Amino acid sequence: MHVLITGAAGFLGQRLTAALLERGELNGRALTRLTLVDRVAPDRVTPDRVTPDQAAPVPPAHDDITLDCRAVDITRPGALDSLLDERPELIYHLAAVVSSAAEADLDLGMTVNFAATRTLLEGCRAAGLGETRLIMASSVAVYGGELPAVLDDITALTPQSSYGTQKAMCELLINDYSRRGLVDGCVLRLPTIVVRPGRPNAAASSFASSILREPLGGEAAVCPVPTGLALFVMSPGRVIDALLHAATLPGDALAPYRSMMLPGLTVSVAAMLEVLCAVGGEEALARVSHESDPRIEAIVASWPARFETRRAERLGFVGDGDFHEIVRTFIAEQEATSERFE
Amino acid sequence: MHVLITGAAGFLGQRLTAALLERGELNGRALTRLTLVDRVAPDRVTPDRVTPDQAAPVPPAHDDITLDCRAVDITRPGALDSLLDERPELIYHLAAVVSSAAEADLDLGMTVNFAATRTLLEGCRAAGLGETRLIMASSVAVYGGELPAVLDDITALTPQSSYGTQKAMCELLINDYSRRGLVDGCVLRLPTIVVRPGRPNAAASSFASSILREPLGGEAAVCPVPTGLALFVMSPGRVIDALLHAATLPGDALAPYRSMMLPGLTVSVAAMLEVLCAVGGEEALARVSHESDPRIEAIVASWPARFETRRAERLGFVGDGDFHEIVRTFIAEQEATSERFE
Repeated sequence: MHVLITGAAGFLGQRLTAALLERGELNGRALTRLTLVDRVAPDRVTPDRVTPDQAAPVPPAHDDITLDCRAVDITRPGALDSLLDERPELIYHLAAVVSSAAEADLDLGMTVNFAATRTLLEGCRAAGLGETRLIMASSVAVYGGELPAVLDDITALTPQSSYGTQKAMCELLINDYSRRGLVDGCVLRLPTIVVRPGRPNAAASSFASSILREPLGGEAAVCPVPTGLALFVMSPGRVIDALLHAATLPGDALAPYRSMMLPGLTVSVAAMLEVLCAVGGEEALARVSHESDPRIEAIVASWPARFETRRAERLGFVGDGDFHEIVRTFIAEQEATSERFE
Repeated sequence: MHVLITGAAGFLGQRLTAALLERGELNGRALTRLTLVDRVAPDRVTPDRVTPDQAAPVPPAHDDITLDCRAVDITRPGALDSLLDERPELIYHLAAVVSSAAEADLDLGMTVNFAATRTLLEGCRAAGLGETRLIMASSVAVYGGELPAVLDDITALTPQSSYGTQKAMCELLINDYSRRGLVDGCVLRLPTIVVRPGRPNAAASSFASSILREPLGGEAAVCPVPTGLALFVMSPGRVIDALLHAATLPGDALAPYRSMMLPGLTVSVAAMLEVLCAVGGEEALARVSHESDPRIEAIVASWPARFETRRAERLGFVGDGDFHEIVRTFIAEQEATSERFE
C-alpha cells in the first residue's frame, strides 16, 4: 500500500509517519511506500535527526517500506501530478498555513489552504484516483458566530476567520468530488490538540499545552484566559488514531457527507489545572501565573467547546477517556523520549 | 446611485431591472445609473423588445437614469475591473449556470458559479469597494443529505449537487470578504420561484409553475411527482422585493453571518392543485395529468421544504401571504402583460 502525506514535516505529519511505520500495515494490507511531502523534504523522521522538542516516537526500521521524502511546493499547479500518477491508495492532506498566518495574509491562506487543495483534487481527478481515500484535517475554526450551546453534526459552518472559511470551502469541494466519484474523501475536524510536546508557539491555543507541559517540566507558564473558559480537546495520540481509523472506513459509510468533528473532550481551564495539581502537586500548580490577554481570550472564547459527535462515534472514532489520561500519557511519552536521548 | 447587475438578461435580472427603473430610487437615494451585464448585452428590458414570454413588467421611461448594457464574459479574469473602477454602490450578482448544467459539467460550474464570483470579490477588493453592498442569489440547493424535519438559520450546508457546493463556497467567500471589510455582502437563499411566466424549461422544478400556468392558460400540463410532496416556494414579486430590501439593510445588522434563507411558503403539490381548482375551476384542474418521473421526483424530494426563517423575518424580509395570493398575482400580471401586447 502506497501512502502519500502532504505537510509531512509538521507536528501531525511526523507523528502519523511514525505511527504508520510502527504498524507497517493498514486495514490488513502491508505498507510498501510512504511518500512524504512538505516545503522542505520531511526527513526529520529519521531517528538520528529527531530532537526531544520534536518528540515524535521513533519508529522501528522497516526495510520493506520505501520512504520517499520530497520537497514540493504544493501551491504550484500540477506540483503533485507526477506523484499522483503513481496512484497512491491513501492520501493524508495535512499541509496548511495556520490560522494566524491565514488571517494576516488572505492571499497566502487562499493559495495554500484552498487553491492547493483544489489542485490536489484536480490531480486526483486527472489521475483517475476515484478509489483513493483522501483524508484532510479540518478544524474547529470552521465554526463561529452565533452558535447553539451544544453543536452537532448538522450545525452550520459560519466561520469567523479566513482560515476557517478556507477549510470549510475545502470540505465542500472534497465532498462534491467524492460524491462525483473523483476521489474517496473524508474530512476530520480536529479538536484543540493537548498536550503538545515542544515549546510554546504563536498559536492562540498554545497556552492550553503550556500550562501543563511547562509546570510538569519545572518551568513557569502563563495562563492568559479566565479559568472558567472551556476547550474541546483531544490528545495527539487519539488524533493520530483517528487519522489511521479514517483510512479503514468504507466510502459508503461516510456518505452523504464526509466531514465530521472528532469526539473531543470538553474541559475547563480550571479542570485542566486541577489535573496538573493532582499529577504534579501544588508546586507544579504554583508555576502557573494568571495574566489576562484579551486578544487570546477573544479568539479562544469564540471556539465552541461543546459538541455532540454521534456520527464520528458511530463510525468508530474514539476520544480520550478523561483529562487525567491525556496528561498521564503525555508524561509517559516525555519520559520515553528523554530516555532515548540520555 | 450606481447599480451593477450581473446575469441581468436572466429571469430575475430583467425583473429586478424593471423594478429598479420603476422605483427610480433605493433607500431614499435616486438611481443615476444601471449597468446591466450578461453574456449578451441585456437590452431586452427595452420595452419594444419584451415579448409576452419574458413578461417582465415594462418600466416607465426614466430620462435621468443611464442604462448601460454590456456583453461581458465574467469568467475572464479582470473582466469586470473597469466597471468596478467606476465604483458601483450596489452590485447584484445573479449570473450563474443552473444546477443541471453545473452537474453535467463540473468545470463549467466551477468557472461560472465559483471562480467568477471569486474574481468579482477580488475586483471589489482591488477597487476598494468595502462600502459596496454585494447581493448574491443563492439557492435551496445548498442544503441536502441527512437533514432535520425543519431547517433553520443554523442548519449545516451539506449540498448533494455541484451547483449547491459552488453556491455554498461563494457564500463562505462573500462572508469572509465582508468580515474583512473588503465588500459589504449579503446572500439570499431563494426558495423555488412559483409561478414563473413563460414556457416550461429543463429545470427539475419547472413542473411547479407548469401545473398552474398551463391549465390557467387553457393548456395541458403533466405533474411528475406525488401530490403529497411539499415545496418551499416564493412568488417572483416577493423575490424581487427581497432583492430590493437587501440593498437597504445596514451591514452590521447582517453580521456575523450574511447568508439566509428567505421566508418562503411550504406548500404541497396537492394544495397547489386545490388553489388551481378554486381559481380556474374543475376544467383547469382536469388539464393536469399525473405521470410519475422518478428522476424529477428524486431531485425535488431532496430539496427541504420546511424552514424556520426567523433571521430573515427579523431583518424585514416578507414572504407571500398564501398560495392563493401567489396565483392571483400571477393571473393579474399575465392579464396586464396580455393587454400590453394586444
